[in-house]
Amino acid sequence: MTSQALNDSPAAVRAAIARGEITGNTSALCPGYVQANLVILPKDWAFDFLLFCLRNPKPCPLLEVLDPGDPLTRTIARGADIRHDVPRYRVWRDGVLVDEPADIADLWRDDLVTFFLGCSFSFDFALQNAGLPVRHLEQARNVPMYRTTRPNVRAARLGGPLVVSMRPMAPELVARAAEVSGQCEGAHGAPIHWGDAADLGIADLARPEFGDPVEIKPGEVPVFWACGVTPQAALMEAKPPLAITHAPGHMFITDLRFEELGGLESAPKQS
Amino acid sequence: MTSQALNDSPAAVRAAIARGEITGNTSALCPGYVQANLVILPKDWAFDFLLFCLRNPKPCPLLEVLDPGDPLTRTIARGADIRHDVPRYRVWRDGVLVDEPADIADLWRDDLVTFFLGCSFSFDFALQNAGLPVRHLEQARNVPMYRTTRPNVRAARLGGPLVVSMRPMAPELVARAAEVSGQCEGAHGAPIHWGDAADLGIADLARPEFGDPVEIKPGEVPVFWACGVTPQAALMEAKPPLAITHAPGHMFITDLRFEELGGLESAPKQS
Repeated sequence: MTSQALNDSPAAVRAAIARGEITGNTSALCPGYVQANLVILPKDWAFDFLLFCLRNPKPCPLLEVLDPGDPLTRTIARGADIRHDVPRYRVWRDGVLVDEPADIADLWRDDLVTFFLGCSFSFDFALQNAGLPVRHLEQARNVPMYRTTRPNVRAARLGGPLVVSMRPMAPELVARAAEVSGQCEGAHGAPIHWGDAADLGIADLARPEFGDPVEIKPGEVPVFWACGVTPQAALMEAKPPLAITHAPGHMFITDLRFEELGGLESAPKQS
Repeated sequence: MTSQALNDSPAAVRAAIARGEITGNTSALCPGYVQANLVILPKDWAFDFLLFCLRNPKPCPLLEVLDPGDPLTRTIARGADIRHDVPRYRVWRDGVLVDEPADIADLWRDDLVTFFLGCSFSFDFALQNAGLPVRHLEQARNVPMYRTTRPNVRAARLGGPLVVSMRPMAPELVARAAEVSGQCEGAHGAPIHWGDAADLGIADLARPEFGDPVEIKPGEVPVFWACGVTPQAALMEAKPPLAITHAPGHMFITDLRFEELGGLESAPKQS
């Protein structure tokens, strides 16, 4: 990646990704712009997944859904091509990871449906802007993520447990963190829990199921947010014949400014 | 219908409907409770329809969506059975109305997906409570409805024009009507237009495509709301092999109070 890319427009960065000039993770790219989680499924699974997102809006905040076979975004970015515009993809067959390509043009089919979901990069940015600690960024790690014992609201073939991300902070900062992230329903919104990890069935904060452990300083408490790994975990459990996602940290960069995300989306409260 | 039914709980009224004791339209039943439009489709069409609703939230406010094959409601009513609990249904095959049964148990299949959408009965009630005129109720008619030249946001195989309902009133009442109905996103929300019908491509207010004409008094202007006939019109145009809806005016009565509807639902703004 060139340092130039850091300040380029999302469209220019996506074009560089499509040309193979940017291949790494996207966390430092286009600061202030919303990044999105990606899920692509055959149409036979698309209804189940859309219903799952609507019934579980905190882990699965929908940003855009494309028509079957349509690889071009309309609302979160102008005409981005999802076959090329993400730096690295993951290809799952029957729930098993089989490939991590940089392009999925050769896998594209007329029955594939693309979903974009909000990502916590957005509120990490907002938390930092508000002067709140974001430990995994301070430590240059991936955010720690944990399976909980809290079940998702099932939708047809999709269920599984809620997965959460964790950011430690002093208890007196929790209300402010909730306020800042709560303005952003398009990126998981306010925390779902803070304090005792055992309430969520998490046995050991030092051993996250996904991502990296982070330091919890004396007097700090863990604060938990619904996490975009939740739908991936549900899909791995349900084992559709084909699923394509972004590789961890290698997100789709939208044209939306972070401050547009609050009002962009809210999903049916079915639970 | 017995006069008793007017004051019974929604659950008791649905049970009487299921027993065949109430067969007429539901407009006067369970005042203050939300009534819902019904659409049932084979799963092959369910993704298209769900996406259509999300992209066109004003005409298609989603209240609940059931799993494929599941006939029982979970959130808008406690365990209502959609095979029996509506007084009259319409059965469409390839876009053609073929039957109007009082029960659909014999048509039920494991791949049928049930959608409940908000209905303007809800805000008619709110408008009246606010002292605003609701002419079709004053005249004991069905609300007049018109196809417009405004296209819906297409979703896969579903498109078609926006259909609107119309309530005439004095211009100085429009702001209050918008405020009252705007609190109710689950039932089409605020008006989409008022004043000149030609702006919507409506040639003659005296000749609605659906429902009945109503009197427009001197000095009154027509006020237009997005209408729940919109998705039915889209389906008639797209011609799925099977669709089941409520018969006009014969709605599903929910357990939700009208005042719960405002915050119940809002759908992704994709347009």
